[in-house]
Amino acid sequence: MFQAHGYAAHDKHSHLVPFSFERRAPGLNDVVIEILYSGVCHSDLHQARDDWGGSIYPMVPGHEIIGRVTQVGSGVHKFKVGDLAGVGCLVDSCRHCSACEEDLEQYCENGLTVTYNGRERDTGAPTYGGYSDIIVVDEHFVVKVSDKLDLKAVAPLLCAGITTYSPLRHWKVGPGQKVGVIGLGGLGHMGVKFAKAMGATVVMITTSPAKGQDAQRLGADDVLLSTDPDAMKAHANSFDFLLNTVPVPHDINPYLALLRRDRTMAMVGVLTELDPPPNGVSLILGRKSVAGSAIGGLKETQEMMDFCAEHNIVSDVEMIAIQDINQAYERLVRNDVKYRFVIDMASLKEPS
Amino acid sequence: MFQAHGYAAHDKHSHLVPFSFERRAPGLNDVVIEILYSGVCHSDLHQARDDWGGSIYPMVPGHEIIGRVTQVGSGVHKFKVGDLAGVGCLVDSCRHCSACEEDLEQYCENGLTVTYNGRERDTGAPTYGGYSDIIVVDEHFVVKVSDKLDLKAVAPLLCAGITTYSPLRHWKVGPGQKVGVIGLGGLGHMGVKFAKAMGATVVMITTSPAKGQDAQRLGADDVLLSTDPDAMKAHANSFDFLLNTVPVPHDINPYLALLRRDRTMAMVGVLTELDPPPNGVSLILGRKSVAGSAIGGLKETQEMMDFCAEHNIVSDVEMIAIQDINQAYERLVRNDVKYRFVIDMASLKEPS
Repeated sequence: MFQAHGYAAHDKHSHLVPFSFERRAPGLNDVVIEILYSGVCHSDLHQARDDWGGSIYPMVPGHEIIGRVTQVGSGVHKFKVGDLAGVGCLVDSCRHCSACEEDLEQYCENGLTVTYNGRERDTGAPTYGGYSDIIVVDEHFVVKVSDKLDLKAVAPLLCAGITTYSPLRHWKVGPGQKVGVIGLGGLGHMGVKFAKAMGATVVMITTSPAKGQDAQRLGADDVLLSTDPDAMKAHANSFDFLLNTVPVPHDINPYLALLRRDRTMAMVGVLTELDPPPNGVSLILGRKSVAGSAIGGLKETQEMMDFCAEHNIVSDVEMIAIQDINQAYERLVRNDVKYRFVIDMASLKEPS
Repeated sequence: MFQAHGYAAHDKHSHLVPFSFERRAPGLNDVVIEILYSGVCHSDLHQARDDWGGSIYPMVPGHEIIGRVTQVGSGVHKFKVGDLAGVGCLVDSCRHCSACEEDLEQYCENGLTVTYNGRERDTGAPTYGGYSDIIVVDEHFVVKVSDKLDLKAVAPLLCAGITTYSPLRHWKVGPGQKVGVIGLGGLGHMGVKFAKAMGATVVMITTSPAKGQDAQRLGADDVLLSTDPDAMKAHANSFDFLLNTVPVPHDINPYLALLRRDRTMAMVGVLTELDPPPNGVSLILGRKSVAGSAIGGLKETQEMMDFCAEHNIVSDVEMIAIQDINQAYERLVRNDVKYRFVIDMASLKEPS
């Protein structure tokens, strides 16, 4: 066992505070990772505050983890001590269902084991995430990380990155296509970078002129203000794919009108009702689809990490110390970050 | 010009009454069809009563038309006098947009011309439908009809038939697949027959045990009562395709739970809001899709007619005289028909 240190929420109303806990001793296939950086996902806040119900306390959030391997089990093949390593939203799955066998562990039919606020498959012990100094994970659920990239800005790739990369790949985004990314936040800013790197013509679709300008800096070819009815009309029936990263309920009918016939809008942000409801006619006239997509499997996450190394893609981040996490959550609520907070875990060793 | 006779609604509150009007003289590519049978689609009722707005009066409804060719223009190639002929929901389109060029006239980007309650592209004159004795249509929008089938039961294929056949083909339904047809009415009963003939294992999903029994008579392999939570749970994540024919707003989340990963539910019935709204998680967990589909193009409609002749598929119909149309509408409102009313247009010549 390892004595680990991190920050935890102890109930839905409390701030995160220092917390000591145990990590398991590494098994045959486990790697032990000293955590260097941990991204702050909006879902950390939702789960710490039990917005979705079922939260397990104490909770150590964090599923955008970058670190260095300090120890490996005797059966580990992919990693050696000193390697850089990444851990995302899942740390285990059943490994034998059709989803797991197709490298789509995120859709494990027997329930995946999430990196925090979940339970270990064998012991039922709670899982603790990346707002900590050390983590022990089966090597299958750990990805290799290139040393060519700015490491602190790599962390958000493990959730915000793969959540946008995977649907862009699944719906075969590429050259000659016009792709819209709806909403510019942690997910949307990665969507713009990936869609552009895949060769598409990228349009940032936003309600905010300021965000539109920023999107062009990030690589967007054009900006469409969804609040401008004339502009929305001018872009009607013209998009080959829409990546909808908006994290709150909103009217998707105006976006469906932007799609070409037989095309898809993939939802990756809204985990609640699509309210106001879409209209049947928005789908029927043009044989359009609304789909969902969840993070990505381990094979694809590694593919994304390699793609990022090749194309020099990282997140735009704002670094914080772990002591600033509660203040960062308040800023997240106000959507006041460009575009991802990342915790420098070295700060854990500083006096609080 | 032809003097035509039919039944028309004169305003949203009135019953349909006898109505005389003019049909155009046949142009180069037109066929003149003596109408034998006209199916009664639920949308006839909605448009006669202006439920969707924009109705044009007087309105002669009817877009499930079977008849015999009595005259052809000099440029007509497909038909000769005496041939059987079918006309469905559209009688014209722009003929040059990408949809028209791909034989998907139903998605014409410049607006298709519907068989009734529309306007002719050249003159702007109102289009009048099948509740009449004669119709003049460009041969491109007329399909050939086999004399092997029971003609009166063929009429509903032109709308209820193609509306269900097209999505089953588009999403490649076939042997080895488990397909659910949701809702047993004019559309649903055709969906069951087609999916079965295409080789799928067909499950009728209904709220009504009596309809479930009837579905098995129509060819369904199994029945799933959507009101039975245990049964719904037993079928979770097991369907390769769902054809949702329910014509009124309803909660689609329980149906999305039935789909396997990466599969689609196609909506063909609801032309209003999908209320209560679907949940983002219903789509995201399993990368599922909700799509829409509208009728079919002329090429596919002909393919369906040929498929029906080959597989001996027609609708289950209840014959009425045109004089019974208002009473039939009342029964439609109560969903009291198995499964399609068809008007014997010979009744037009009887004293009312």
